[in-house]
Amino acid sequence: MREDDITTWFRQQRELSPVQIPIGIGDDMAQIAVAHGSSVLITTDMLLDGTHFDMATAGLERVGYKSMAASLSDCAAMATIPIGAVVAVGLPARFGELRLKELHAGIVAAADKYDCPLVGGDITSWQGAGRLAVCVSMLSKPGEKPPVRRNGARVGDVICVTGSLGGSGLRKHLNFEPRVKEALEMVRIADLNAMMDISDGLSTDLNRICTQSGVGALLEATALPISTDAQRLADPVAAALNEGEDFELLFTLSPEQWGRLRGQWSSPVPLTEIGRITDTGRMQIRGADGRVVDLEPGGYEHLGS
Amino acid sequence: MREDDITTWFRQQRELSPVQIPIGIGDDMAQIAVAHGSSVLITTDMLLDGTHFDMATAGLERVGYKSMAASLSDCAAMATIPIGAVVAVGLPARFGELRLKELHAGIVAAADKYDCPLVGGDITSWQGAGRLAVCVSMLSKPGEKPPVRRNGARVGDVICVTGSLGGSGLRKHLNFEPRVKEALEMVRIADLNAMMDISDGLSTDLNRICTQSGVGALLEATALPISTDAQRLADPVAAALNEGEDFELLFTLSPEQWGRLRGQWSSPVPLTEIGRITDTGRMQIRGADGRVVDLEPGGYEHLGS
Repeated sequence: MREDDITTWFRQQRELSPVQIPIGIGDDMAQIAVAHGSSVLITTDMLLDGTHFDMATAGLERVGYKSMAASLSDCAAMATIPIGAVVAVGLPARFGELRLKELHAGIVAAADKYDCPLVGGDITSWQGAGRLAVCVSMLSKPGEKPPVRRNGARVGDVICVTGSLGGSGLRKHLNFEPRVKEALEMVRIADLNAMMDISDGLSTDLNRICTQSGVGALLEATALPISTDAQRLADPVAAALNEGEDFELLFTLSPEQWGRLRGQWSSPVPLTEIGRITDTGRMQIRGADGRVVDLEPGGYEHLGS
Repeated sequence: MREDDITTWFRQQRELSPVQIPIGIGDDMAQIAVAHGSSVLITTDMLLDGTHFDMATAGLERVGYKSMAASLSDCAAMATIPIGAVVAVGLPARFGELRLKELHAGIVAAADKYDCPLVGGDITSWQGAGRLAVCVSMLSKPGEKPPVRRNGARVGDVICVTGSLGGSGLRKHLNFEPRVKEALEMVRIADLNAMMDISDGLSTDLNRICTQSGVGALLEATALPISTDAQRLADPVAAALNEGEDFELLFTLSPEQWGRLRGQWSSPVPLTEIGRITDTGRMQIRGADGRVVDLEPGGYEHLGS
């Protein structure tokens, strides 16, 4: 069973009240109603030494920054405003105060930069062998428009991404810039139909939008904004399609709204049209030679092989 | 440096806006303001295999239940109403679908019992060796009265606990009943000045109330409600004072309010007066022989020795 199948299974186990839980399992964040018609959104991400970072080479400040940035990217993925975070850590034995403070420095650097204060946490230690685990849970609130979900893509929509894709493992995954303010600016200008952040690879994450929206997609290989790091790899297109941890935004919107967004966009972060939402019910990609082939989700699988 | 010193250091690194973050680092939950004068509270707890449970003997359903119950106990500790939880897991390699579903069964059993839906999560796996880590983050909302904090104890207050103490490691730590409804009933009847849940042992947790409130305490050893499991141990009083994971509530209130609470209390969960808040600035305990001695925090220390 793959991660997405398990997520679907979890979602099916309990029906959540749409009044109390407007957005439940399966999106970038869940939305919970609070008093007086207001709501908050919540996301949680666990980062593990050896899986999401290498404690020995990354430096603990980078680890702290990345842990926060991954959750900030989830806030961006729904175009919501981060309001606070808690961090729980499972520390290796004899981790020590100095290293804990390094980790903390990275956490508060991200908190300061994105105006999302660290409000609490939990510190615990492995007994015996055990590697560093960092779990960030973050709250956000809706901006002026409702949160943008994964399930709203419509046939004919333009598919776009922010920034560039691929090669994140070389450098970017430790110091990427979550697209929080870009997302808020995008929804200020235009109406987006679907959005998520690319954490497991474009092909895998686009498949999530397609599946949840009940649509297909046709990507243009020549349109992919391939990062300079990915261009140095053996297969840059495959890196852009399948590598995880880009932490860019993947979104769809009508051609009219795309015209509007493109026309008014003044941020240095580029927005690129990479394809269209189709009624084929499956993902396809057109290569440089003009041939259209099926595209399988080939990105990172959290449950292993 | 001990856990409480580190927590204090973290709290001092950033001043949090009392408007946006009415309750920050150092209480059972943090409180974050949302739109329209409403607020939510958040807590996070990471439970580790070999530290908080033994995966091989506990059974994964119990592990899932305990993970949720620990956070529910934090909601109880502030007399707030749980509204939703997210769970992040770091899985050992080849954990498999069946075991994940067992863990999930325990999580939703607690979610159902305490009306706190599982709304999202994150699944990831260790590459290479790595043991199970489960991190629950839970949201609650204030009831009719403001959240009860740790820092409100006043000289002359009666110190009370729910249930019985000690010996939790034998059985109770895997299937305790978080005192969510008892806490809400207590604040309905009376005004509490300070409260927290006993997770690291009475002596350590009372010390937190005393430190944060700037007061001392005098406990009566003969008044401690020692659990039947602790009574079988070599030193039952020490077990009641210093063992962790009781997950009972420790609270203080004026003698008048205590009279009111005791008079109207009809729950099967007992409330017991165990001492008084004093102006000595330190914790003391009166033994069965009438002698008063200093009481040091002797409970569980998460940062190890």
